[in-house]
Amino acid sequence: MGTNRLEAFSDGVIAIIITIMVLEMKVPHGSTFADLAPLLPVFLSYVLSFVYVGIYWTNHHHMLHAARGVTAAILWANLHLLFWLSLFPFATGWMGENHFAALPSAIYGGVLLAAAIAYWILQQAIIAAEGPDCLLRRAVGSDWKGKLSPVLYACAIASTFFVTWIAQAIFIAVAVLWLVPDRRIERTLQHET
Amino acid sequence: MGTNRLEAFSDGVIAIIITIMVLEMKVPHGSTFADLAPLLPVFLSYVLSFVYVGIYWTNHHHMLHAARGVTAAILWANLHLLFWLSLFPFATGWMGENHFAALPSAIYGGVLLAAAIAYWILQQAIIAAEGPDCLLRRAVGSDWKGKLSPVLYACAIASTFFVTWIAQAIFIAVAVLWLVPDRRIERTLQHET
Amino acid sequence: MGTNRLEAFSDGVIAIIITIMVLEMKVPHGSTFADLAPLLPVFLSYVLSFVYVGIYWTNHHHMLHAARGVTAAILWANLHLLFWLSLFPFATGWMGENHFAALPSAIYGGVLLAAAIAYWILQQAIIAAEGPDCLLRRAVGSDWKGKLSPVLYACAIASTFFVTWIAQAIFIAVAVLWLVPDRRIERTLQHET
Amino acid sequence: MGTNRLEAFSDGVIAIIITIMVLEMKVPHGSTFADLAPLLPVFLSYVLSFVYVGIYWTNHHHMLHAARGVTAAILWANLHLLFWLSLFPFATGWMGENHFAALPSAIYGGVLLAAAIAYWILQQAIIAAEGPDCLLRRAVGSDWKGKLSPVLYACAIASTFFVTWIAQAIFIAVAVLWLVPDRRIERTLQHET
Repeated sequence: MGTNRLEAFSDGVIAIIITIMVLEMKVPHGSTFADLAPLLPVFLSYVLSFVYVGIYWTNHHHMLHAARGVTAAILWANLHLLFWLSLFPFATGWMGENHFAALPSAIYGGVLLAAAIAYWILQQAIIAAEGPDCLLRRAVGSDWKGKLSPVLYACAIASTFFVTWIAQAIFIAVAVLWLVPDRRIERTLQHET
Repeated sequence: MGTNRLEAFSDGVIAIIITIMVLEMKVPHGSTFADLAPLLPVFLSYVLSFVYVGIYWTNHHHMLHAARGVTAAILWANLHLLFWLSLFPFATGWMGENHFAALPSAIYGGVLLAAAIAYWILQQAIIAAEGPDCLLRRAVGSDWKGKLSPVLYACAIASTFFVTWIAQAIFIAVAVLWLVPDRRIERTLQHET
Repeated sequence: MGTNRLEAFSDGVIAIIITIMVLEMKVPHGSTFADLAPLLPVFLSYVLSFVYVGIYWTNHHHMLHAARGVTAAILWANLHLLFWLSLFPFATGWMGENHFAALPSAIYGGVLLAAAIAYWILQQAIIAAEGPDCLLRRAVGSDWKGKLSPVLYACAIASTFFVTWIAQAIFIAVAVLWLVPDRRIERTLQHET
Repeated sequence: MGTNRLEAFSDGVIAIIITIMVLEMKVPHGSTFADLAPLLPVFLSYVLSFVYVGIYWTNHHHMLHAARGVTAAILWANLHLLFWLSLFPFATGWMGENHFAALPSAIYGGVLLAAAIAYWILQQAIIAAEGPDCLLRRAVGSDWKGKLSPVLYACAIASTFFVTWIAQAIFIAVAVLWLVPDRRIERTLQHET
């Protein structure tokens, strides 16, 4: 089985997740700046999550490019990743509506952490299917970003018990870290061909 | 007519169903654990339904792989299946919000039962189009899972009149039963080629 | 430009329309039959609209199969059709929530009428692009269904001023009329090749 | 990397945006003309935004046709455009619900302005990747529409401080301007081949 339908389905789910998040920005009833102002934290958390989902989409895109076939393990590892991504709209809306309060920020970090682990599992499932010397494994290399991110998310969750804005700073820092797109696979692919 | 556009449309509908379900988890107004706690049953029923929709997607995926063309009967049998799947968000949300009460659990079982029957009808429509000796028929074999599931769903519905948690246990058991992906078609396909 | 991306985009929009309609069936707060009963008309109008959108999807599917290229006129005639289809969830929800009252039924008929006209315009745009002797024109033939439906919708709208259930009967009758899928194009295609 | 998956993902997001906007037209509770009347401005703003999203989709379609590969810059310029388009449902709903009041109209103009700039950035990213003598650059030519639109949007935003209906008139005028589809790329493509 090829990766086409898996990509198409994942694209569909991610496209819906990224768009549904905006529905948490409820249209206010009045038409003044005072009506719009309370939406600012919701908007900011939407921007943050949009960037995160965008990062997942682009990296997912690259990773599946390195896979040649789809096993049952890959199929379910992918659904597992989509499950955690599907919780982004809820976590984003809750954090935004409560102006980045401690518990919602911790939950948001928890969803990010779970998605990062799910991504790593999917990566391992592809490597397991492709063999120990496969393209993806060499492309990923030391995978320092993939290893560092969960640690940072855990720090962010812990920080919400003390100073909440540290968590937000970490979320932004990790997003910036990943915004530099994952060129390793592209580069390795070019070396091969 | 090929199966491509049928698959693409089904993928789209299933991707939306799986994502829309999460909208039933309404963002709470407060930011404490006490605000989050009432969402736990909604979350659990979301996890259950996510797994079910995932199972339908993967098996649908495999089944259409065994079809070479699309007849009007297949087209409408597929839409019929999508209709029942589209009721998952409603049934999931209602069951979750009412903490797995009797009637919502019975309705949830009813939607599962109807979807299982619709899946069987689609399977028969493909076999009818492909001929009595087709790949799908041999791949499906005795189809004990497909025959056992509706019986179990009916038991679950009946159990809601007495002890509700039995219904939940059956829903989980059937999901686990199917989580072992349908390798019959893959295996038969490999024997052929 | 090929028809691929037009089909994919239309599939996406139609898949979302068909799924979003179910969101009008709001999860009730109680868990008894008395809580579920008021949803029956909403459910029935959902079934009716699901069938209509399904009919549009299958016929759209067949029609685009007969087109070889996409002109600007086809692109916008298609978007025009999608616009009217996008009003289905609203019209369906309003009619269902008001138990098939006169005005909502008339508006529902109006949306059906507009969609039928938009479908006809799209058909003419394709025929204009393909030439007077094209496959689609011969396949469509006298197009009695396409000509009769708008007349019946207009009758249904008129009937809402007198006896509302006549409108519902007409809506169901036209759906049944079209449920027999449009085999003309398939047949003509087979004669050609 | 080809443009296929980028197109598919963009199509998915745009299809959802165009359909989700209709959800801002909340089903009224009563069933009389008096219940429907307040929805008229919401409906009109929906029509306007539907046309705008349609214009973006068709032009996006043409533009990506002129691109042969996808770089990281194109990927993120595209996500950036989708971000602003994803704010259309919010801006549309707010403007419609407040009967085209000053501030919501200004915000709507701001979203249009940001989307226009994002579109221009994406266009530059493709031209940068394709080289200074590429097809897209010659096709775009002087790009007077692309340069005039942001200026007009800025005028519309400014006008909301004085006379609000001028902003609406400008929004409609720019939409009409673009409704004439972008045939430059088609024409240049034909000259080449």
